[in-house]
Amino acid sequence: MKYELFYWPTIQGRGEYVRLALEEAGAEYVDAARRKGGEKRMMAMMNNRRLDPPPFAPPFLKANKQVIAQVANILLYLGTRHGLAPKSEAGQLRLHQLQLTITDFVVEIHDAHHPLGPTLYYEDQRPQAVKRSDEFWKSRVPKFLGYFEDIAARGGGPYLDGRRVSYVDLSLFQIVEGLRYAFPKRTKRFERNIPCLVALHDRVGARPNIAAYLRSERRIPFNTDGIFRHYPALDR
Amino acid sequence: MKYELFYWPTIQGRGEYVRLALEEAGAEYVDAARRKGGEKRMMAMMNNRRLDPPPFAPPFLKANKQVIAQVANILLYLGTRHGLAPKSEAGQLRLHQLQLTITDFVVEIHDAHHPLGPTLYYEDQRPQAVKRSDEFWKSRVPKFLGYFEDIAARGGGPYLDGRRVSYVDLSLFQIVEGLRYAFPKRTKRFERNIPCLVALHDRVGARPNIAAYLRSERRIPFNTDGIFRHYPALDR
Repeated sequence: MKYELFYWPTIQGRGEYVRLALEEAGAEYVDAARRKGGEKRMMAMMNNRRLDPPPFAPPFLKANKQVIAQVANILLYLGTRHGLAPKSEAGQLRLHQLQLTITDFVVEIHDAHHPLGPTLYYEDQRPQAVKRSDEFWKSRVPKFLGYFEDIAARGGGPYLDGRRVSYVDLSLFQIVEGLRYAFPKRTKRFERNIPCLVALHDRVGARPNIAAYLRSERRIPFNTDGIFRHYPALDR
Repeated sequence: MKYELFYWPTIQGRGEYVRLALEEAGAEYVDAARRKGGEKRMMAMMNNRRLDPPPFAPPFLKANKQVIAQVANILLYLGTRHGLAPKSEAGQLRLHQLQLTITDFVVEIHDAHHPLGPTLYYEDQRPQAVKRSDEFWKSRVPKFLGYFEDIAARGGGPYLDGRRVSYVDLSLFQIVEGLRYAFPKRTKRFERNIPCLVALHDRVGARPNIAAYLRSERRIPFNTDGIFRHYPALDR
């Protein structure tokens, strides 16, 4: 079976967590909205009332006739099928719980540049974004990354959940990559507090499938339309 | 087995989605942090490095030795065990996807009164909250509730996913209840657009276990410490 991933064709965004899982797994997939006419097809699927339920938003994954939306839900589905999650139900819930905590963090990363909501431009909420970014780095980054650093530090490693790489490791790789792009100065200062996460990031980035993906054109460069945005005013 | 639910003892908050599921299921549970010494025990569990992983935040559910955090993850666990979710994997993923979309909406409900982040008081971000609440009602409420209204309208009913009540129905009940409390004027004006969701709300509220729960002292009244907060300045 060849998967079809549907996501905005010009950004990493939330789709990237799914792309990383498909790439690491060596799964056959098409990044469907990047093909000719693909974005139109994506929009049509979201408005398709015969889909039960239609996705609320991209990304979504088509696996044969099944259409699965919400990043953490897609990873839950892929994880057990491609060795990126434990086999036991308890293990799956444990990993999914960590992914949902990453989901929460991703919302706050986005809100750092869009505190007044996703419906207004950044340029129309810059002073508020400066304030929220300060709070984000003062309180929220230490809380979220400190939590994952703790788990990484006390696990037997080399990965967060033990010997095998999981979709959570891939997502944490992306978090570190994204923060380095969006907030280079602040991230550089902060990294001394998260040595295990930085090591985990490096370990994931060196995995053959991930390294090949990052060098390929399938990896869309970071830009200021995605979740992670580099706005110098926010990186003090 | 008697479940133990751990959540802040004085608010409905995110714990309420779990409370409603446990109540509808008629499950044996203790709202542990509302007992004497319970909040202290909750904090100790969050700092317990032997838990793998410890919860990032309440709510979490203790089921024998398993500790499960993140609302949608807890409902995923409870749903299959208590007839609040379909039995097939595809059906479970479909329902979980809807719950994760509710999770996204809950974040935006919270951000309407805390646009500059959870670390500052409402009083210190009131003008921004006014602006964000306006955007929330102009764009986001119609988008989220319109999505669920569509699904409810075209389903065979009486519940969102068919004949049987699911945890998603319970959560949508709570969303309508909460919006009515937090934004009585705006919700009253908006309800004409979501007749099926209002009917679903009434149907859930009339279920014997839910009705008994709502009348009991186990239901904590809404207040301005939870997710849904009634601030007249935001309800124009």
